[in-house]
Amino acid sequence: MYEEILPQIITTNDTKLLLLVLDGLGGTTNENGVTELEAANTPNMDALARAGSCGLHRPVGYGITPGSGPGHLGLFGYNPIKYQTGRGILEAFGVGMQVNPGDLAVRGNFATLKDDLIVDRRAGRIPTELCRKLVAKLREHIKQIEDVTVDIEAGKDYRFAVVFRGPDLSDKVSDADPQIVGKPPKPAEPLAPEAEKSARIVNKFIQMATEILADEHPANTVLLRGYATLPDIPKYEEKYKLRALGIASYPMYRGLAKLVGMDTPPVGETIDDEIALLREKWNDYDFFFVHIKKSDSYGEDGNFEGKVKIIEEVDAQLPQILDLAPDVIVITGDHATPSVLRAHSWHPVPLLMKGRYTFADDARKFSERECAKGILGHIPAEAIIMLMLADAGRLLKFGA
Amino acid sequence: MYEEILPQIITTNDTKLLLLVLDGLGGTTNENGVTELEAANTPNMDALARAGSCGLHRPVGYGITPGSGPGHLGLFGYNPIKYQTGRGILEAFGVGMQVNPGDLAVRGNFATLKDDLIVDRRAGRIPTELCRKLVAKLREHIKQIEDVTVDIEAGKDYRFAVVFRGPDLSDKVSDADPQIVGKPPKPAEPLAPEAEKSARIVNKFIQMATEILADEHPANTVLLRGYATLPDIPKYEEKYKLRALGIASYPMYRGLAKLVGMDTPPVGETIDDEIALLREKWNDYDFFFVHIKKSDSYGEDGNFEGKVKIIEEVDAQLPQILDLAPDVIVITGDHATPSVLRAHSWHPVPLLMKGRYTFADDARKFSERECAKGILGHIPAEAIIMLMLADAGRLLKFGA
Repeated sequence: MYEEILPQIITTNDTKLLLLVLDGLGGTTNENGVTELEAANTPNMDALARAGSCGLHRPVGYGITPGSGPGHLGLFGYNPIKYQTGRGILEAFGVGMQVNPGDLAVRGNFATLKDDLIVDRRAGRIPTELCRKLVAKLREHIKQIEDVTVDIEAGKDYRFAVVFRGPDLSDKVSDADPQIVGKPPKPAEPLAPEAEKSARIVNKFIQMATEILADEHPANTVLLRGYATLPDIPKYEEKYKLRALGIASYPMYRGLAKLVGMDTPPVGETIDDEIALLREKWNDYDFFFVHIKKSDSYGEDGNFEGKVKIIEEVDAQLPQILDLAPDVIVITGDHATPSVLRAHSWHPVPLLMKGRYTFADDARKFSERECAKGILGHIPAEAIIMLMLADAGRLLKFGA
Repeated sequence: MYEEILPQIITTNDTKLLLLVLDGLGGTTNENGVTELEAANTPNMDALARAGSCGLHRPVGYGITPGSGPGHLGLFGYNPIKYQTGRGILEAFGVGMQVNPGDLAVRGNFATLKDDLIVDRRAGRIPTELCRKLVAKLREHIKQIEDVTVDIEAGKDYRFAVVFRGPDLSDKVSDADPQIVGKPPKPAEPLAPEAEKSARIVNKFIQMATEILADEHPANTVLLRGYATLPDIPKYEEKYKLRALGIASYPMYRGLAKLVGMDTPPVGETIDDEIALLREKWNDYDFFFVHIKKSDSYGEDGNFEGKVKIIEEVDAQLPQILDLAPDVIVITGDHATPSVLRAHSWHPVPLLMKGRYTFADDARKFSERECAKGILGHIPAEAIIMLMLADAGRLLKFGA
């Protein structure tokens, strides 16, 4: 946002900015006319809402339901339509793989080949445990193809990710996936002249994997699709002059934070683990992204009460975070995941901000309904970081 | 809106979407501090407002007063600045003429020529009845010019519309209208090389009409302006994968609906007639645009009570529409027509939406004032269809 003027107005100081993201925080009203956030008992967030400013944000645009990638890129201040992150990248992030500039990341499925036809695109949904064993077998035999090294990681069930690392790779390759069963395997084809090598490497990988898996059943071949290289995205240090730390238990969110230049050390599973890391690193960074996953997971399960409980747990831990005295804190979600919908949604996401100069508006508690009355209004997700930087004194006056 | 990503996320299902437009619905406060919608007794809309989500929309942009064309194109989900519909097209639509790709539509005035000067650009504002007679006379004598067929329809008072149908027509032609009286007739001139034929045809039409009208008074010549060809606009079926039906008593609105690919069968004058057609066609379409004209007409007449009464009439009929159980219903206007202003205006337009996943917000009734508190916020008109599609489950998740 405002990329053309940001370089003239961005400056630095010793303020600390904290972005606390409850994944899928937003909701819509259930049969009792309330959302999870409205139902939750959140005395600490409510006090912060009364002291600070509230509003609602839209992650990508009106009516658009964001995946995790666009949801976070928006919060990080990037236009999620301009900066799209391919599926292969997110798949690789999700299983904790590094993707570096030039690498080609790909989603893989184990599949079933019979009489030269793909008869099951998910190999009977083999269990994760078997997937790990098969990936270990592939990894042992496929280390390099031409001058390209090959990294493979197991995902859930029949899924895995591959990262090809080497010179001259391109994502302009067609999916090696017939999409429907009963068809023969479909080799990858280059969609541009510069992708000939990539298509050749991908097809060689499939050939080798199929030979290695020949005696397995039902997972005796692989399908590869969702080819992606890293988007060329300006990093936090360069764009915002911020040394940024991303704290997330789930690898996908560490991957997304790393994409924009945040440091992303591993951290344990609990909110306590995340807060412990936050305290430990507080002096070393300017900007802190803290990600809580489970609010989204419960929303996707349709578990209203579970989502309420996670919100309440985070609320209970909030004083520990506030003890660090961030100059600006924002609490929000990357999108809505209403438990009545059991999925990500397009609904506006509640947003709470407290800084040194935030307007104490009329929002009495942290909820969608109160946020609709807040002084921040309805804003694109990209605007949030601008408001944080402004309150922290990190944006100079524009124009004389 | 979001044209670059819409093709990847649009999908279909068997939901029914209904857009009920009260033309010129929005208002501004009168001497008693209320708008027409606020003064109206609308128990059914109020109940829907309490159950659903409210907001305000701006049809074209801040401070911009829309004509009927931009007002409706915005509601239909098209950027009204990008997709402009020339006056000739709207004039032709307004008198119920078809305009097909390649046709050139033009507005005409009867005018008075004396001593080779245009002395009245509206021919003394001749009555509609006389206009019809003169148009019949022109129609009888001007059927074809070169390889171009000519269709003429009378409008109100001194106005008429012409549609030229034939190969190689262009709208890059200067107005054949001196604009001020006391000047000689101004022939049309081509504004681009490809418009030479069109200018020649237009000038021939004017010459023929002036000969035919030689013995008439005061309507003894014609002025032609507002040349327009159809904008190249993506149709509903292609853009939104919606089979759409436009229900409007007035031909201009059927024309606008047809422009975006809606089917637009003729319908009677009353709201009852429109609802009968809606019921009859309910199983054949996915999207229904229902247009109520009279709220605008009373606003333009400065008739506050008349506009209130129309709104109340629509409210009384609303249960009949709700009986059809649309999955998503939106009630709004294409712009404001405050009776205190007696004209279209730039004011934000009240917007009410009820779907399966709409947030039941704090708006207690359907009014500008309550809509300002609604969870939808202030949105561009183009966003409305996106929100409807989202609630209906017709937009897939964007990004992984």
